[in-house]
Amino acid sequence: MEPNGLSQEEISMRLEELNDACEVPWCVEGDYLKKQFAFKSFNAAFGFMTRVAIKAEKVDHHPEWTNVYGRVDVALTTHDADGLTEQDFSLAAFMDRISGL
Amino acid sequence: MEPNGLSQEEISMRLEELNDACEVPWCVEGDYLKKQFAFKSFNAAFGFMTRVAIKAEKVDHHPEWTNVYGRVDVALTTHDADGLTEQDFSLAAFMDRISGL
Repeated sequence: MEPNGLSQEEISMRLEELNDACEVPWCVEGDYLKKQFAFKSFNAAFGFMTRVAIKAEKVDHHPEWTNVYGRVDVALTTHDADGLTEQDFSLAAFMDRISGL
Repeated sequence: MEPNGLSQEEISMRLEELNDACEVPWCVEGDYLKKQFAFKSFNAAFGFMTRVAIKAEKVDHHPEWTNVYGRVDVALTTHDADGLTEQDFSLAAFMDRISGL
């Protein structure tokens, strides 16, 4: 079963909910939900990535991400839906909860 | 003490040594030593990244890298030397050794 893509209105709602709960906002660019996480060290950045990786495997939904020392640039999308789904917003909220930022 | 940048000649030599020992070659682009590692799964890709991350912390030399599912794009450089050093080639060789590819 293919996941359901969210409508523009649903995306706006989810984005507002998400950003109410964190300091650095997520933004929607095309089919992607993006955010940059800035940690104080590589150890902290990779520790965060490791927790996210384990979660990603569990829910079978994986981020696209770039890491440079303490920085982690995350881009979420659902290729099967050609856009954003609940899975993306759920993984984003998880990242915010565990980032400690 | 700042690390010593390698000369163009030394870089060519090190690159040849490195690529003699692996199937997919590294390439030098500007100040970066780059390679794409293609694993069969996210689990394999992130397992590789975790081993590299631990090594990187130990030697205090960190990759710049992007991960999309089973793919890991690595870029190595030594900012303190404005170029490539032994540290980059050493970390590259480590990645090849443990990648299992």
